[in-house]
Amino acid sequence: MGVEMERSQEELLAERMVRALARGDVAELNAVYEHMHPIDLAEAMEEWEEEQQAQFCSLSDDEKLAELFEAADEKLQMELAGYLDNNRMLTIFARMQKDDIVDILGNLRINRRKQLVDLMRAGERRIITELLGYEEDTAGGLMTTAYIALNGRLTIEDAIRKIKEIGPKTELIETIFVLNHQKQLVGTADLRDILIANDQDTLESISNDQVIWVEPETDQEEVSLLVSKYDLNAIPVVNKRRVLLGIITVDDIIDVIMEEHTEDMLQLAGVSKEETIDSTVLESVRRRLPWLCVNLITAFLGSFAIKSFETVIAQVVALSATMTIVTGLSGNSGNQTLSVIIRSLALGELELKGSWKLILKQAMVGLVDGVCMGIGTGLIVSVIYQNFYLGLIIFGAMVCNMMIAGLSGALIPLVLKALKQDPALASSIFLTGVTDVLGFFIFLSLAALFLPLLM
Amino acid sequence: MGVEMERSQEELLAERMVRALARGDVAELNAVYEHMHPIDLAEAMEEWEEEQQAQFCSLSDDEKLAELFEAADEKLQMELAGYLDNNRMLTIFARMQKDDIVDILGNLRINRRKQLVDLMRAGERRIITELLGYEEDTAGGLMTTAYIALNGRLTIEDAIRKIKEIGPKTELIETIFVLNHQKQLVGTADLRDILIANDQDTLESISNDQVIWVEPETDQEEVSLLVSKYDLNAIPVVNKRRVLLGIITVDDIIDVIMEEHTEDMLQLAGVSKEETIDSTVLESVRRRLPWLCVNLITAFLGSFAIKSFETVIAQVVALSATMTIVTGLSGNSGNQTLSVIIRSLALGELELKGSWKLILKQAMVGLVDGVCMGIGTGLIVSVIYQNFYLGLIIFGAMVCNMMIAGLSGALIPLVLKALKQDPALASSIFLTGVTDVLGFFIFLSLAALFLPLLM
Repeated sequence: MGVEMERSQEELLAERMVRALARGDVAELNAVYEHMHPIDLAEAMEEWEEEQQAQFCSLSDDEKLAELFEAADEKLQMELAGYLDNNRMLTIFARMQKDDIVDILGNLRINRRKQLVDLMRAGERRIITELLGYEEDTAGGLMTTAYIALNGRLTIEDAIRKIKEIGPKTELIETIFVLNHQKQLVGTADLRDILIANDQDTLESISNDQVIWVEPETDQEEVSLLVSKYDLNAIPVVNKRRVLLGIITVDDIIDVIMEEHTEDMLQLAGVSKEETIDSTVLESVRRRLPWLCVNLITAFLGSFAIKSFETVIAQVVALSATMTIVTGLSGNSGNQTLSVIIRSLALGELELKGSWKLILKQAMVGLVDGVCMGIGTGLIVSVIYQNFYLGLIIFGAMVCNMMIAGLSGALIPLVLKALKQDPALASSIFLTGVTDVLGFFIFLSLAALFLPLLM
Repeated sequence: MGVEMERSQEELLAERMVRALARGDVAELNAVYEHMHPIDLAEAMEEWEEEQQAQFCSLSDDEKLAELFEAADEKLQMELAGYLDNNRMLTIFARMQKDDIVDILGNLRINRRKQLVDLMRAGERRIITELLGYEEDTAGGLMTTAYIALNGRLTIEDAIRKIKEIGPKTELIETIFVLNHQKQLVGTADLRDILIANDQDTLESISNDQVIWVEPETDQEEVSLLVSKYDLNAIPVVNKRRVLLGIITVDDIIDVIMEEHTEDMLQLAGVSKEETIDSTVLESVRRRLPWLCVNLITAFLGSFAIKSFETVIAQVVALSATMTIVTGLSGNSGNQTLSVIIRSLALGELELKGSWKLILKQAMVGLVDGVCMGIGTGLIVSVIYQNFYLGLIIFGAMVCNMMIAGLSGALIPLVLKALKQDPALASSIFLTGVTDVLGFFIFLSLAALFLPLLM
């Protein structure tokens, strides 16, 4: 397949690049670079020795380094910044988008950041300082200032002239943002419509005034949901007076969506969103241990529930082997509900208010699943242990506990959300805590009540 | 905030629309429609009565219905199709993108689909039949034929004339696909570069020949990873001879990413990807029960592991309360590894070959976590039960079983992937099956070995 062929070709190119660096052969470096995507070069470079990275920085021009910075991940960006002095950084920044510059500055140590910002020209410094002020995971932190915004009173002829002039410096050309005299956003114009309109028409006559916009404080997850819902190729960011501050392009939105989903899936199981398969063993351990300690507490709570029925278990040892069936099934059943609710929250389909109906529905699903599984388990246990009442008790415990699992699977993420926490935050650990403690308690309580029938 | 204000405004508009329909007031319907996004109308319409939906179909023109079809979800599309006869459907299709028409046809019953395709003009029928031949979740199933492809030998002047001509019918104008005389894809040209180039230059002189493309059979997940990696705004689909067949636009890619992530998260817990919070109780139960039945089997396996040690438990009842700490912690620890591996697989960061190092690393993480948790648990248990050896046994079991949990958390998704299954497919249920059975077995075996020390 085309794609796979290109991949191995990229590896060959990366090897040629390394040889060119070793020889200090700038011409060969330039020739190889012509055939590489910056993102593939960045990926290869992550594996290089420090000297090779430094050699690349000293041999290549600002244009290449700017492209490389835009493609690199945070770690490589910081490594590259280490090989470059402040003046070189500034000439590279001159070729980069503002949102990418801000991302790099935000990760540098505060001293270096301050030095670089102080060295910038006044106009540039003002914009960068403003962008640095927004939280990284808000619309303000994602936006770029490289867009085309034109006054609606312009004629199509003038508009096209301006677009040709500004276009090459922008991230997006297909949508032109239309402003009024107070620089307020009043609409958008599609380049297609501009190209076929009459020269003397005004821009506002062909613009669309149904604009979806966000404010700089809007959370990135909400921004991504709007872009995805309305199939936008960019979303404008405006202040309270509806003055256009910047735009967010769809490639950044895709990164947000990927990031948010990774976060949801990892946090569900109590893993930090910073952990990847490249994390070292000690990093992974350090990030996971805190939630395992929480889990240790919930596990001991379950253990205490059992311990308080030790005399019952001593009389009917079969309880020990059967109680784990109740908790095991309820835990997984609750996790089923949990995953449905967390996905709906992430897709913005679910709001907190009025979710009682939903919680009850999930409890109902648990109840019905509990009846089905309870009948199966009850029958099998009755036969194995030759005791009808043991089967009946496990049936009752299963029905109650699976209902509780459904209830908890819906409640835990909704409560975390209400507490302004990530709804996925270790919710699986909390859930199994609840289903274990209550599962053991209900089953063993029923057993204690009907003890004479079991012996 | 702007967005929220607009949302409640959308509700008011939807109410006005309903009143207009009741009165049969076409002028008011048109006026209200002007201020609504089709996607918001579609969402409102999902809640309408059948008569209201039918009334809308009979009162509104083809243009509105085409926009509505493109915005509607599968269920609403099928409802709308039910109110429209074949001829009306064809006049609406004439205003829609081919990929959207194919999606609708693919969901219609086979008879109706055949009727509609047979009524199409020959050229149209050929394209639609070809598109219908691709699987829904491949590049072929996602692509549209509404793009601009021009011969590289064209002058910029001619190219701009063609772009103005074809542009309004396309989904994307920012990227122009450049072909050679055999209609093979040889490059892409950026509209920005075209607008500022000299009239008499050729298109190929400003085009970029580093094109990322896919074949129609490429899986949609792989397509989305390429688009996200290279920040593309569209990806071309070519056949084996590199002839351009269609393009996939970024809005469809966002839908794919959302869908694939939903699938991963739900399947992890053993929930069908078709389940949403709007599913009825019985639908949910029907979709979840199969995996709970699998879980019933794994739960009984765990139960049998315990049952075979009943005589040991009868002598030391404390084992019953402490064994669940080992399995509870290992289960959640394994789920931590599971979620990291499944995310990496979904992000394309992980390949099967050469993953042994990774599997060993995850086992190491489990081992270290096991030592930490084992020391804590061992100490607490020693104190509570006043038995040092019980603490030692739980420490040993914890170390072994957490290592197994790390190993299984990495192996299960990788094995599912190797078996061409979704790596998330109920992997959490399989994992807790392994950690429960082995956890009980290891802990109780150790207890049986050192039984005299525990009594």
